[in-house]
Amino acid sequence: MQRAITLAKKGHYTTSPNPRVGCVIVKDRKIVGEGYHIKAGTGHAEVHALAMAKEQARGAIAYVTLEPCSHFGRTPPCAQALINSGVEQVVVAMVDPNPQVSGSGISLLEQAGIKTKVGLLTEQAQALNPGFIKMMSTGLPYVRCKLASSLDGKTAMANGESKWITSPQARSDVQRLRAQSCAIITGADSVLMDQAKMTVRWQELGQLKENYPQNDIRQPLRVIIDSQNRITPDLPLFDTPSEVLLVRAAIENNHQWPSFVQQIQLPLAATASGCEKIDLKHLLHALAQRGLNDVLLESGARLAGAFIEQDLVDELVLYQAPKLMGGDGKSLVAMPGIENLSAAKALAIKDIAMVGPDIRITAKLEENKTCLPE
Amino acid sequence: MQRAITLAKKGHYTTSPNPRVGCVIVKDRKIVGEGYHIKAGTGHAEVHALAMAKEQARGAIAYVTLEPCSHFGRTPPCAQALINSGVEQVVVAMVDPNPQVSGSGISLLEQAGIKTKVGLLTEQAQALNPGFIKMMSTGLPYVRCKLASSLDGKTAMANGESKWITSPQARSDVQRLRAQSCAIITGADSVLMDQAKMTVRWQELGQLKENYPQNDIRQPLRVIIDSQNRITPDLPLFDTPSEVLLVRAAIENNHQWPSFVQQIQLPLAATASGCEKIDLKHLLHALAQRGLNDVLLESGARLAGAFIEQDLVDELVLYQAPKLMGGDGKSLVAMPGIENLSAAKALAIKDIAMVGPDIRITAKLEENKTCLPE
Repeated sequence: MQRAITLAKKGHYTTSPNPRVGCVIVKDRKIVGEGYHIKAGTGHAEVHALAMAKEQARGAIAYVTLEPCSHFGRTPPCAQALINSGVEQVVVAMVDPNPQVSGSGISLLEQAGIKTKVGLLTEQAQALNPGFIKMMSTGLPYVRCKLASSLDGKTAMANGESKWITSPQARSDVQRLRAQSCAIITGADSVLMDQAKMTVRWQELGQLKENYPQNDIRQPLRVIIDSQNRITPDLPLFDTPSEVLLVRAAIENNHQWPSFVQQIQLPLAATASGCEKIDLKHLLHALAQRGLNDVLLESGARLAGAFIEQDLVDELVLYQAPKLMGGDGKSLVAMPGIENLSAAKALAIKDIAMVGPDIRITAKLEENKTCLPE
Repeated sequence: MQRAITLAKKGHYTTSPNPRVGCVIVKDRKIVGEGYHIKAGTGHAEVHALAMAKEQARGAIAYVTLEPCSHFGRTPPCAQALINSGVEQVVVAMVDPNPQVSGSGISLLEQAGIKTKVGLLTEQAQALNPGFIKMMSTGLPYVRCKLASSLDGKTAMANGESKWITSPQARSDVQRLRAQSCAIITGADSVLMDQAKMTVRWQELGQLKENYPQNDIRQPLRVIIDSQNRITPDLPLFDTPSEVLLVRAAIENNHQWPSFVQQIQLPLAATASGCEKIDLKHLLHALAQRGLNDVLLESGARLAGAFIEQDLVDELVLYQAPKLMGGDGKSLVAMPGIENLSAAKALAIKDIAMVGPDIRITAKLEENKTCLPE
């Protein structure tokens, strides 16, 4: 199963919106077939592994990181392929997270007289597909919020200067986060102030470049929250012809937009401070409907604060530069002050690492109880 | 030498103000003697190692983590003891950091015809004694600044609530920092607000307890900066009869103080904000004169900010609780805002670790160019 998980990881940057899945077929303690899912619309992991094993699959054990599918999607059901192959046993790391089909692949196998076992290395298998699992179980995408600050939690000088707080190594690490996301959300403020392009720059992907040829890297959808229609077609954002979604309170037709730009209109909702802002839950729901499982939020303190405040963030990736800035510089997240410590947003640290001279902290938000908008 | 460094570490909590030193004597590739310095006034590492090696020292190699002393202090010079023992070679990790005696121990050995070698595992040997080295080379103690905050750099709610931001594990880790310090500096504010005792609580020393019997742990001098004479003898601080130094702008005689309390008067200096505050460099100089090499600063944002602002801090130990607090809560360090990023205080991260659910970041301040007060 460990091998199957390793294989699944190879699809890390390409399978979306499908899950990353690996499959290994073992006969007489020898691997006779293995495969992983590469790209939506192409063969699933099991299909690749069975193709490699051919006749040797008969009487073998198949290890799969996710319950084999039981329905016709873009490809025929894998559970049936496994039955046809004559395998004797199927070991599954985790069941399908979609409550409507969960267990049906296993039932199909069992009805055909194949022994099944569920729950080997489940945690590792779950970690392969946080977006897919979140989407299937809640209908909302998995939201990763990237932030950068000094050690004392500051993001900008009094004069607003904020670019390059962290190192080139940290910024290149962010490229990796972008590359594994289906969409990047940011605010019009950031786009206007930083003249940001919000694209994956292949040149900066470091070691990743070896495994992912420039042509295989997909550009995530760039989602710009622009409730006041301040974004215009002359910005550097539109230099790269990859998809942009402008999220607006009202569609505008004053500009000639490139063909890769789309506008959507979303309702406003009153925020804690009383202002009317785009309803973020609605936005995430709209992204979910487009099959976007993994979303990266790369924004300023205000938008990040609003997402966190509404418990819409699953994971925080915080880059801390080894600096003390002092003063009343902008805070890391703009949220209304809390009255007592128990009201603070609680996280669980998943990983701490050095990225060049900076610290990268990965943490899960704990009180993330999101519901679908009505 | 690695063994000698390991031995030296055993004196971590007891040698002060003397350095931690280890010595290993090797003959025919076998250790025939070893020792470390335990406590000021008692035998040095070399003396213990030679006592163990006895006659076998003749023709042996001695490995010492610090250049052997050449002068009569509280004990006779170790260089002479090595000469008398008949060792053939002495390998030294680093020379004495005191510029006035540096090299004289080695000269003495060489004049007696003993081969010497300097510079084995120097960095590890230096890390044994940051306080001793700083003191010898600059005349000021090594200052460790302990801070605690949320991930977004907040230290308190709007209502001032700040106790227990970090976990019991982190607070117990701070006990370890206290135990290895000669003095703890804090402000009257913290003592009054938190009703703090600022003592080492042996019960909370965790694993350390095994190696350091309760009776061997010394209580660091508690230094309270109290320029407005607000500290009174009825505070919990005075419940434990271990030394307290009240740092004041003017000595007061209105109260009856316990015998373990001393007041010193230090000059005021104008701060960046224009207020008159105790001159911190003078304070550190006064502590240095008392032989206090390792100082722990455990204070609020204002005092910490003042020390850092004046480049008087060598090392930052920052505990970050996995929380986001938002709001305009107190900042981690109160320093005047900076105009551009290059003016930020630069650090180099030395270590990141999990302490219970919290993150501990250890970093060296890089622009620490302190001078002695005139």
